[in-house]
Amino acid sequence: MESVGVGLLGLGTVGTAVARRLIDEWELLGERAGATPVLRAVAVRDLSRPREVDLKNARLVADPGAVVADPAIGIIVEAIGGTDPATALIESSLRAGKTVVTANKAVMAESGPRLTAIAAEHSARLYFEASVGAGLPVIGLLRGSLLGDRIATLDCVINGTTNVILTQMRTAGVSFEVALADAQRRGFAEADPSLDVDGWDAVHKLVILAWLGLGSRVAPAAVDRVGIRHVAGADVAALAQLGYRVRLVAHAERAPGGAAVHLRVRPTAVATGHLLHDVEDADNAVVISSDLAGRVMLRGLGAGGASTASAVVSDIVTAVRERKAPADRAVSAPVEARLLTEEDVEVAGYVRIRLSPEADARALVLQALEDRGIPVDAAVDAPGSELIVLTGTAPRAVHDRALETLDTLTHVDEILGALDRAEA
Amino acid sequence: MESVGVGLLGLGTVGTAVARRLIDEWELLGERAGATPVLRAVAVRDLSRPREVDLKNARLVADPGAVVADPAIGIIVEAIGGTDPATALIESSLRAGKTVVTANKAVMAESGPRLTAIAAEHSARLYFEASVGAGLPVIGLLRGSLLGDRIATLDCVINGTTNVILTQMRTAGVSFEVALADAQRRGFAEADPSLDVDGWDAVHKLVILAWLGLGSRVAPAAVDRVGIRHVAGADVAALAQLGYRVRLVAHAERAPGGAAVHLRVRPTAVATGHLLHDVEDADNAVVISSDLAGRVMLRGLGAGGASTASAVVSDIVTAVRERKAPADRAVSAPVEARLLTEEDVEVAGYVRIRLSPEADARALVLQALEDRGIPVDAAVDAPGSELIVLTGTAPRAVHDRALETLDTLTHVDEILGALDRAEA
Repeated sequence: MESVGVGLLGLGTVGTAVARRLIDEWELLGERAGATPVLRAVAVRDLSRPREVDLKNARLVADPGAVVADPAIGIIVEAIGGTDPATALIESSLRAGKTVVTANKAVMAESGPRLTAIAAEHSARLYFEASVGAGLPVIGLLRGSLLGDRIATLDCVINGTTNVILTQMRTAGVSFEVALADAQRRGFAEADPSLDVDGWDAVHKLVILAWLGLGSRVAPAAVDRVGIRHVAGADVAALAQLGYRVRLVAHAERAPGGAAVHLRVRPTAVATGHLLHDVEDADNAVVISSDLAGRVMLRGLGAGGASTASAVVSDIVTAVRERKAPADRAVSAPVEARLLTEEDVEVAGYVRIRLSPEADARALVLQALEDRGIPVDAAVDAPGSELIVLTGTAPRAVHDRALETLDTLTHVDEILGALDRAEA
Repeated sequence: MESVGVGLLGLGTVGTAVARRLIDEWELLGERAGATPVLRAVAVRDLSRPREVDLKNARLVADPGAVVADPAIGIIVEAIGGTDPATALIESSLRAGKTVVTANKAVMAESGPRLTAIAAEHSARLYFEASVGAGLPVIGLLRGSLLGDRIATLDCVINGTTNVILTQMRTAGVSFEVALADAQRRGFAEADPSLDVDGWDAVHKLVILAWLGLGSRVAPAAVDRVGIRHVAGADVAALAQLGYRVRLVAHAERAPGGAAVHLRVRPTAVATGHLLHDVEDADNAVVISSDLAGRVMLRGLGAGGASTASAVVSDIVTAVRERKAPADRAVSAPVEARLLTEEDVEVAGYVRIRLSPEADARALVLQALEDRGIPVDAAVDAPGSELIVLTGTAPRAVHDRALETLDTLTHVDEILGALDRAEA
């Protein structure tokens, strides 16, 4: 059987799992691909470090550039992570006409459309299933399915770390800090957790999904982003009583009939019956709503070496299968998107207020919300003169202004917490 | 822009929705496909019947063979249903080197591998996303994703009609007959419901999924099949009390390390926390367990004209995209599978028994189960001298023999109900 040389950049958790599968299952992969992918070289930072995988005939080298330049290698697998030097290595591989398989969401969010264009120019190919949702094949779904549909919204839980933390806050009744420390101890959060807990990781993935699903190009910095650092345990607990679970929801939508889109990543109270309600711990899920199919959910393990390797190896098999096809199946270039303004984006909310001791404070607050254009879907009294209000759908700007001015009312002691809310 | 002629066979609910999308969205579809699919002819049984869609320039004809023979038509969309004449029309289209898109699960289950081989011989292509799960793109997932994984099991709710009936039995507390009549009134069940309620529809879909997911060819008649006609409302209610929902679960598994497979379609008590537990009404879901990705679930609308049309039109766009690619991406031929015997297939169960009035009947029955090799996971007393036993995992044959011999014991008045059980 014909063989295709594979070069691997990076031998961390994902790289190791990819190497192991390529070496252990070469025969199966060859059968499925129509030619055998053969691991020929692996670039690592430290040649002397002990490795968990027997690389057999593959060379271990310190210079990733040498792997890219090797004429016996047709497929470059980038498993380094981060944007530098990964972006440059991917770019030089594509310019050399090679196929690239990457798990790198930061690179794909920042430079995906540019790299795709470079690939097209040089009859090269770029695969990135592993960049979003690890073992959850959402990239393949958006590239290859629902091709006659108009997608209206994407709603996702696509960051395992924050979902582990938020799940722990609810089930153990602990604060963000305690749950974070616990997640770090269990290996679910990095020592520096900011990429996850501040929402950047979810932003990167959402930008990629919006590119493929909505055909829109949005810069990561332009995404409406709120992390989970300020989610209070008291809000998680109060919402749990009402049947809601707080998740870091990544949401993208296209305005009906229009070219404008909206992308946000925010902690959101998700109602019982909503497809994201039960997506606990490290699970990821993407819910796609479109005009013909209705809604489709893909759910699976969103992190971990094995599940990420699953996506990378599947891309390698696809790359080998498609090696002789004309390179015209590239993703179409996204349109630079106009963003919806805060006056146009409609959201529902949750707010927890400590009322002042006046007898009519409750009624006055609810009236004040209505006066400011915020429908009240439900109001629930809680101990300690607290009032929980489920606010109805209204523009983000109207919500924000209402909360700001509410804070100054004499019958409001303090606004204790506020979150977006998603109904089933 | 280049165009590709499309011929449609059948103008029922699905065909109408497909025609409408092709006509209304030709520009969008053309952009996505790289050439415009143009509907040129539609074959219907009765030319005089009024139509819900304006076919514009497409010819309406009575002879499907004329559509297949039309040299201006490159893509044949089969939306007739049933095996005859659909199978012959698909075959003759493929032999003419044409691309076929079909929604026909009966044809694909009975003849899929043979038709795929014919397609390969004649450099033709065969797409069948709509044959399983309507708008839920599981065929695309199995053909294009998880390609480096070894899939161990598939667990599916893939028949909307039975799921609507079973959901109604639980929520309204009615019998199968009442729920069926209600489903028929609401358009969820046919006048002759046997294809659905006896499990054949789910069998057809499962056979297709096992072909693509396990690489195994199993004849529909060889699938272990139990329909839902004999599911008692009392069992549905008793199980609901214990946190279980009864669904018609389609299950396929490959024995670890072996070539033998097992396919079954049976009403199954699904525990809270299981991914299929919440799949209510007409929703469909497929849960795939594999060695790298872990488990992946795809969930969506499993029936209806629009969602089925979504899959058909997506296949048309793919067909147009791939029209110039070498026809070497066909599904590999499945292996004629050895089936696991009932001695090898392990299941857990539920059984509801009316005890005789003896004082020690309960203890004796539980002892009798253990004596026959059936672990008792839990035993719950119910009104009317009823005993509910959740039986632990044991071979199917051991379960069946135990129930048969239990029925003859003097301390057992009657075995009132028995079902498979699936835990989270």
